[in-house]
Amino acid sequence: MEWTRRGSRSTIDSMNHLEQLYRPSLAMLTDLYQLTMAYGYWKQDLAERESVFHLFFRKNPFEGGFSLACGLQTAIEFLEGFHFHADDLKYLASLTGADSKPLFDEAFLEYLGQLRLTCHIDAMPEGTAVYPHEPLVRVTGPILQCQLLETPLLNIINFQTLIATKAARICTAAEGDRVIEFGLRRAQGIDGSLSASRAAYIGGCSATSNVLAGKQFGIPVVGTHAHSWVMTFPSEREAFEIYAQAMPNNCVFLVDTYDTLEGVRTAVEIGRTLRKSGHEMLGIRLDSGDLAWLSIEARKILDDGGFPDASIVASNDLDERLIESLKYQGAKIDTWGVGTKLVTAFDQPALGGVYKLGAIRDEQGVWQYRIKLSEQSIKVSNPGILQVRRFEKPSEHRGDMIYNIEMHQELPTDVTMIDPADSTRRKHFDADSQSADLLVPIFRDGANVYSTPTLQEIRQHVTTQIQRTPKGVQRFDNPHSYPVGLEKSLYETKAAMILEARNRS
Amino acid sequence: MEWTRRGSRSTIDSMNHLEQLYRPSLAMLTDLYQLTMAYGYWKQDLAERESVFHLFFRKNPFEGGFSLACGLQTAIEFLEGFHFHADDLKYLASLTGADSKPLFDEAFLEYLGQLRLTCHIDAMPEGTAVYPHEPLVRVTGPILQCQLLETPLLNIINFQTLIATKAARICTAAEGDRVIEFGLRRAQGIDGSLSASRAAYIGGCSATSNVLAGKQFGIPVVGTHAHSWVMTFPSEREAFEIYAQAMPNNCVFLVDTYDTLEGVRTAVEIGRTLRKSGHEMLGIRLDSGDLAWLSIEARKILDDGGFPDASIVASNDLDERLIESLKYQGAKIDTWGVGTKLVTAFDQPALGGVYKLGAIRDEQGVWQYRIKLSEQSIKVSNPGILQVRRFEKPSEHRGDMIYNIEMHQELPTDVTMIDPADSTRRKHFDADSQSADLLVPIFRDGANVYSTPTLQEIRQHVTTQIQRTPKGVQRFDNPHSYPVGLEKSLYETKAAMILEARNRS
Repeated sequence: MEWTRRGSRSTIDSMNHLEQLYRPSLAMLTDLYQLTMAYGYWKQDLAERESVFHLFFRKNPFEGGFSLACGLQTAIEFLEGFHFHADDLKYLASLTGADSKPLFDEAFLEYLGQLRLTCHIDAMPEGTAVYPHEPLVRVTGPILQCQLLETPLLNIINFQTLIATKAARICTAAEGDRVIEFGLRRAQGIDGSLSASRAAYIGGCSATSNVLAGKQFGIPVVGTHAHSWVMTFPSEREAFEIYAQAMPNNCVFLVDTYDTLEGVRTAVEIGRTLRKSGHEMLGIRLDSGDLAWLSIEARKILDDGGFPDASIVASNDLDERLIESLKYQGAKIDTWGVGTKLVTAFDQPALGGVYKLGAIRDEQGVWQYRIKLSEQSIKVSNPGILQVRRFEKPSEHRGDMIYNIEMHQELPTDVTMIDPADSTRRKHFDADSQSADLLVPIFRDGANVYSTPTLQEIRQHVTTQIQRTPKGVQRFDNPHSYPVGLEKSLYETKAAMILEARNRS
Repeated sequence: MEWTRRGSRSTIDSMNHLEQLYRPSLAMLTDLYQLTMAYGYWKQDLAERESVFHLFFRKNPFEGGFSLACGLQTAIEFLEGFHFHADDLKYLASLTGADSKPLFDEAFLEYLGQLRLTCHIDAMPEGTAVYPHEPLVRVTGPILQCQLLETPLLNIINFQTLIATKAARICTAAEGDRVIEFGLRRAQGIDGSLSASRAAYIGGCSATSNVLAGKQFGIPVVGTHAHSWVMTFPSEREAFEIYAQAMPNNCVFLVDTYDTLEGVRTAVEIGRTLRKSGHEMLGIRLDSGDLAWLSIEARKILDDGGFPDASIVASNDLDERLIESLKYQGAKIDTWGVGTKLVTAFDQPALGGVYKLGAIRDEQGVWQYRIKLSEQSIKVSNPGILQVRRFEKPSEHRGDMIYNIEMHQELPTDVTMIDPADSTRRKHFDADSQSADLLVPIFRDGANVYSTPTLQEIRQHVTTQIQRTPKGVQRFDNPHSYPVGLEKSLYETKAAMILEARNRS
């Protein structure tokens, strides 16, 4: 093979992959069709026509009964930095169509260069329990802008919502034990790891192994040593001894390099020496073998050796199902290290979030509702400018109602919601019902108006949300379906629109 | 909910998630245990002890018979930028152990601050067909440095290798048709999309929808319009007309917003108008429904309407299995849009690559070989300083032999390799065999010595590699196992080491 040194990237500019990514604006992180449509709107003088889009998913991931909204803070940072750089425009100017002529007029590229977001954006706070068909984000503004934001918002919100939900499930299975995320080495790229560490912490994990995620987000970081450390020295005993001397205040010994239970005994001996120097061994880690049996045997050795408080950390391709099974088998594991299965959401590595047009103003400024038809009724989108009202008992969520804020600036105190999949299933809420709207203002006229919560506050919000989510909804197998309905007049509007559209075609 | 505005990130510095993410150095993108081990080596005065690590995987993804090495260029950029920033060290100084005292000495952090890589790195060029247990990357150098590189190298190489392999499978199923990647909206984070676009292009895709990937890597970008474009206008006809006026040189009409075949007929009419103005409709896109039947009907309408050259693009959760099935059903699709299933490697979203110590010099400077034992013999690593020799017929790869370059600076012309899973399976290569070593020098003493190929050259290399990979190895179901063996003396060394280690424990 004779390679010439030319670099594997386009030569528009000299930044490399990592440098390019680091730029404050990721406006170019979008699908080309958003730009070709933007061009079409601009040419047709429709670019500024006000429209509203909703970001939602149609099915909870992992065959589960609920999801946790996540990724908003990352989306906010993306939106705050949104603009096209000069070299972005230069690149776009270089794109050509079938006739080898430029795709875009120069005047359009100038328009993009001057573009600043003026949208209103409303969203569910991170950590909110969210259900199929409920908008997680609502974007209202010039249709050209709304369209450009579709792809990056989906990229950010889809993934973090997926991982926060996975983490919540894993933490539920762990029944209050510590769960530590260490998936960096198997994550899907650099941000596949960082976003996953963030979302996993929001979903309930206690710590991460990822140092950059720790620095960036303030997530506690943990880690001690690997098999290679043990293999470096002539014996496991020496490896533990030398580690304990170097870092006596952070000793979790990995015991399965050679013979696991022998490793536990060695850890106990080193733990005793450590204790004489005024330090306490934190625990041991099992990374292979029969974790149920090994943890029970290890617990005995540790207890008998005078270390009843030493942790037993376990890892090895764990997920919520395996943790549930190990718990059932009586495993004496108190800290769960979860990597690949969490950060890639291994059993369902993508959330199918979509972003659909709900309404567009006509030339007279009147909102015209829109739906996307489909053969499958679950895929027909909801028309209007949507909000979600959650009804609660003091300690439990009772049901969510999607309604059109144009029809109801003030929602009546007495309302009926209808299950869109079965119109005979209805729920009535009266004036005494406690309720709150889930979408809150994030941007107004392109300006951030949101008081960003800390990660700790988001974690507290998750705890409350999970406490209030009915237990049956949280079950892994055949979870109860949480009630989500359409407000009656929205239901009727939608039904009439579907009939009209089907008659027309 | 009352949030206070404090930001969800640590306040070590004022960079946000996206800014922080892509700083020129990602040295902190590692597991904490790499740093605690580094500290241990440094304290023990072992930091500079020369060692060798190999990055490899144990099983091809997707139950397949081969993989394509990918991600090296990204790894090179990471390595070239590697250093710890002052604020990285400040963060590390803030970490504490069980006794609330700092984990790391200041002198160690100073050492990290001055650290520049001095490793030798050898790797397989991107696009090389690679098999289980073969080192994709070999890192030789001070053990502290080797260890810090483990996690980021795994993160980068695991993911891109996974996606390039998936893309190659999908392109094989497409039998030479164009395959377009448009997975950005469902990818695992920002880099989950960009790295995937790059790897998918290397694996054989023709284009991406991701504009930033296009700009950054020079990958062709494609895109026209979405359902929302059609929904914006009073009718599908108007939507197509207005699009065609705006961008006559880039017309692929999405026909399934209302009634698919009606949409195709409308596209034909607009195509005729377009033709009068001197432009040719490029094609139509189907995004739902029975793609086999619809494409056959659409082909008739297009052919009868005078558009035999118009493309039929299809999309909707496609992967290699669905494409194979659609081909079998006689679908008239010539361009395949593949998203989620490709960029997340949906059926196996992680490659289980590992990074194992092969040898370390003792105090006398003599290499001491190392293996990681395991109950499962497939998990026992190979000792030594490894290279892979590929034997070829002019048109086909015959087998790969892993050997220890310390034992064989010059490989004998007459060699026997042994299947490590079954020592009675042996293959002999004689002096007439054509062969080449797969690992090539990338860094020497920390300096890049590699002539980086362009993406086009890598794609050409992939084409050649796939042509030379036996057909049975490329089969999706029960692929033939490509011969990979250990050179005889390496096999014997390893066997002796395993016996000795098992006797000891």
